Amino acid sequence: MRQAGRSLPEYRDLRTRHGMLEICRTPELAVEVTLQPIRRLGVDAAILFSDIVVPLQAMGVALEIRPGVGPVIEHPIRSDADVEGLLPLVPEEGVPYVLEAVRALASELEVPLIGFAGAPFTLASYLVEGGPSKNHSRTKALMYSEPQAWRRLMRRLADAVLAYLRAQVEAGAGAVQLFDSWVGELSADDYSTYVLPEVERILGGLADLGVPRIHFGVGSGELLGLMAQAGADVVGVDWRVPIDEGRKRVGDGYAVQGNLDPAACLAPWDVLEAKALDVLERGGGHAHVFNLGHGVLPATDPGSLERLVDLVHDWSPSRGGLGWTAEQSRGGLGRTAEQI
Amino acid sequence: MRQAGRSLPEYRDLRTRHGMLEICRTPELAVEVTLQPIRRLGVDAAILFSDIVVPLQAMGVALEIRPGVGPVIEHPIRSDADVEGLLPLVPEEGVPYVLEAVRALASELEVPLIGFAGAPFTLASYLVEGGPSKNHSRTKALMYSEPQAWRRLMRRLADAVLAYLRAQVEAGAGAVQLFDSWVGELSADDYSTYVLPEVERILGGLADLGVPRIHFGVGSGELLGLMAQAGADVVGVDWRVPIDEGRKRVGDGYAVQGNLDPAACLAPWDVLEAKALDVLERGGGHAHVFNLGHGVLPATDPGSLERLVDLVHDWSPSRGGLGWTAEQSRGGLGRTAEQI
Repeated sequence: MRQAGRSLPEYRDLRTRHGMLEICRTPELAVEVTLQPIRRLGVDAAILFSDIVVPLQAMGVALEIRPGVGPVIEHPIRSDADVEGLLPLVPEEGVPYVLEAVRALASELEVPLIGFAGAPFTLASYLVEGGPSKNHSRTKALMYSEPQAWRRLMRRLADAVLAYLRAQVEAGAGAVQLFDSWVGELSADDYSTYVLPEVERILGGLADLGVPRIHFGVGSGELLGLMAQAGADVVGVDWRVPIDEGRKRVGDGYAVQGNLDPAACLAPWDVLEAKALDVLERGGGHAHVFNLGHGVLPATDPGSLERLVDLVHDWSPSRGGLGWTAEQSRGGLGRTAEQI
Repeated sequence: MRQAGRSLPEYRDLRTRHGMLEICRTPELAVEVTLQPIRRLGVDAAILFSDIVVPLQAMGVALEIRPGVGPVIEHPIRSDADVEGLLPLVPEEGVPYVLEAVRALASELEVPLIGFAGAPFTLASYLVEGGPSKNHSRTKALMYSEPQAWRRLMRRLADAVLAYLRAQVEAGAGAVQLFDSWVGELSADDYSTYVLPEVERILGGLADLGVPRIHFGVGSGELLGLMAQAGADVVGVDWRVPIDEGRKRVGDGYAVQGNLDPAACLAPWDVLEAKALDVLERGGGHAHVFNLGHGVLPATDPGSLERLVDLVHDWSPSRGGLGWTAEQSRGGLGRTAEQI
């Protein structure tokens, strides 16, 4: 889950001088921002600082990240002809700066680096809507009305995402996370019909690399079983579904990740502590990656995050180890979800 | 569920001359806009055209509805002292125009009129955030950090909502719908602790009026059982949870409402038809109010809505009647969920 961000003064300071996409495209800056929360919080893994739209630029999509709005696409994709204009992604040519940052981080970090990419539905939604959307109605309209154009769009995006994630692992990422931020807008039937096959192709296409594959969506409680079956090792659960219930929906043989409400980190310590302990206990101390249920909120006091990390570390040894440790990380890419 | 809106040319035409709050506060306009979808679509019940912030104005809250944004609160409520400034709602004095519209509609309509109000959590979120919010973080921060101020805020809002809904029924509404639009942002634990008691007080306080009480939230699949227990007769289910699964979560003794994805109405007819039939079949033909899973999207072709209403009407008699009919509505206020 996003760790760095506006909750950290060192990040806010850097953002006064550099734009979001500039950071993503400048390896030294991406490395610095990725390291900021590791230095301050002592978490057990780092997640690459980037934005899910970065590979889209390399596919020929003109876009900007507008402050207070989010990604804005200059020419939204709304027809078969528009889809045709999307270029294939060759990571070493299209996003060399990302791979350079991953290589630098892999050699510098004492904890594993999690690579990441946005999943095809979420990327498609940005491309079709032209930016963030309340109800994703144009995306769904395309999906229902022009299934061939939709399938071609999803196929191209899945090809790109697979190449992008493989390249990150080959550059040194020790795990990958596939973010399908908006997929919770779909019913399970629509997910199965219009999305699942391409996600299966991505996650299946990573299997030979032997790194844990984390799959996460927001508000996707009804899809957890399908998201696991798509080929995840770890399924991220947001805070709406208690994590023990999430584990039931995910089924046997998977780890779960989550799921403290990020807003709980705005609470006084006694409230935050009780909520974090509840997540730990429901997680059961095995096959559970403790995490927030979504990204850190900007108003969060970093001091609360530090105490939270300590709490999780203090709790975990008595139950058999949660999260990655530096020792485990030295095992390299061969770890599986069972070992997390 | 909201029926009128930008999908109807007659509504768009009227909006070129009148603002949203102006329509809500002018009985002739509110009546006209409430009637527009009834005339065009032939649905089995009307829902009062209004906005959930209307009673807040009458409680002394300065606000406007800003186009493209939504409600904006001039002085957000973020402390006990701010809560103190909220006036009690006396409907006949504070919102006489709403009651006048309800009275006119009740005498003019051949189908029942559903009154409605926003639920305390959703109203509190607007008041605390100052407008629409992505993550409701200030609201949750207040809830966790100042539980006394939170409880007082919820109590005042619940008092107002109860008075408002009672007044609508007394003016002729044949059912009420309590909309908790944002409640799906909460975990079940937080809902139980911080929200449920006041919703119970509202729904319980309407019991003696003998009208069906519909309770609806968006993305609230994990809360359906609690929302039923709060005292609903009918629980609205959005499109994320299949309605047969929603019925299981709601439990025996309740009716369910929903739950076609509003985006399905943007699809070609064969796709829309298949999706609507799926909802009808999962609904099982009893204790089910066919509806969309949220409001009509602006881009919807009214012709698709007309065909959809016909489809539901054609389907229902063979299974024992869905929705209200004009005959049933003449029974007045004495109907219960079992009779829907």
